Amino acid sequence: MKKMISQATIDRLPLYFRTLRVVEDEEMEIISSDELGRRLDITPEQIRKDLATFGQFGRKGIGYDVHELKERISNILGLQNKWRLAIVGVGHLGGALANYVNFASLGFSVVALFDKNKNIVGSEVNGIKINALTQMKRVIDSAAVDIGVITVPASEAQGVADKLVAAGVKGIWNFAPIKLFVPPEIPLVNEDLSVGLSALSYHMSSRE
Amino acid sequence: MKKMISQATIDRLPLYFRTLRVVEDEEMEIISSDELGRRLDITPEQIRKDLATFGQFGRKGIGYDVHELKERISNILGLQNKWRLAIVGVGHLGGALANYVNFASLGFSVVALFDKNKNIVGSEVNGIKINALTQMKRVIDSAAVDIGVITVPASEAQGVADKLVAAGVKGIWNFAPIKLFVPPEIPLVNEDLSVGLSALSYHMSSRE
Repeated sequence: MKKMISQATIDRLPLYFRTLRVVEDEEMEIISSDELGRRLDITPEQIRKDLATFGQFGRKGIGYDVHELKERISNILGLQNKWRLAIVGVGHLGGALANYVNFASLGFSVVALFDKNKNIVGSEVNGIKINALTQMKRVIDSAAVDIGVITVPASEAQGVADKLVAAGVKGIWNFAPIKLFVPPEIPLVNEDLSVGLSALSYHMSSRE
Repeated sequence: MKKMISQATIDRLPLYFRTLRVVEDEEMEIISSDELGRRLDITPEQIRKDLATFGQFGRKGIGYDVHELKERISNILGLQNKWRLAIVGVGHLGGALANYVNFASLGFSVVALFDKNKNIVGSEVNGIKINALTQMKRVIDSAAVDIGVITVPASEAQGVADKLVAAGVKGIWNFAPIKLFVPPEIPLVNEDLSVGLSALSYHMSSRE
């Protein structure tokens, strides 16, 4: 049982992880919270507070061991699990996600695609075959899928979520703009691209 | 000058807005914070606190006027501006965004596309012509673009941001996984799809 950690802290961990990977590639061995903060535009105090949530990291006045901190964050985020994704709905967004290279660098891989459109079932995107929805249980079993990604229209999303849960996925990443109901033991993260755009609109309006 | 409002509150406003639109379509005239909370899986206390930040809304024991609240949130978010977007980088993600229907429902429209690939310049996505990067200033002027959307690789993103700022955009929505430097008067929102996926990984690992 882990202690409660704020969503905001969890959301910053992938940013730390990504920056530490860049820093490691630059062959830097130690990094201060000042330098990490400068690269991310986050205050050093915030960084020290976030990392302290997970235990003792780094040495006062010296900094953090880059490799050690990167590995610790990777473990906290569970990236060592090398999660396997299935995308349901191979429209524009689903196709874009199937090709999104940054997932691979975090250890995620897309291993299965599904669509209800018979005209594209059997074809491939980025070397991954598109399957019919009726094949979901079988393909998710055989491809050892962990995470179901929902990129179908809102009206079809709950049906797809039910199928994914029945097929045995351990988590759901939902892009459909609708509240989904899944069993409490299945973590669900909703992604909504209009949220970021609306926040930008808010900041642009505030400056006028 | 607006007072400081937390990013978390700003991020919830589009969710309220979207739900109020659905509720309005259902011809409901008054909604309680309980009902709004049930639909969004947010506590009624959180909703009342968020809305109180912006002034007096609703009536105790009765609820919120759906149409009035929707309009107020739209104004707070600046959605009445009907912002016009240009997408730079028409790969998988840029193409998906050009087709993302939910933007239109919030008043955003994609009016211009740019790509450096000469093979696709001149062709159309969703009825919008793809222009060369060299045409940016002219097209952004004539199409009255407000927001530049960056969907190029990280290595090209700062150059594109500089060009967009020089061409006169008022805000930038960045999908490239890199920290961009823009003048302080230009609001910048970074979108990072790995953040949501990493949060899901965290929650899935915590339950094992």
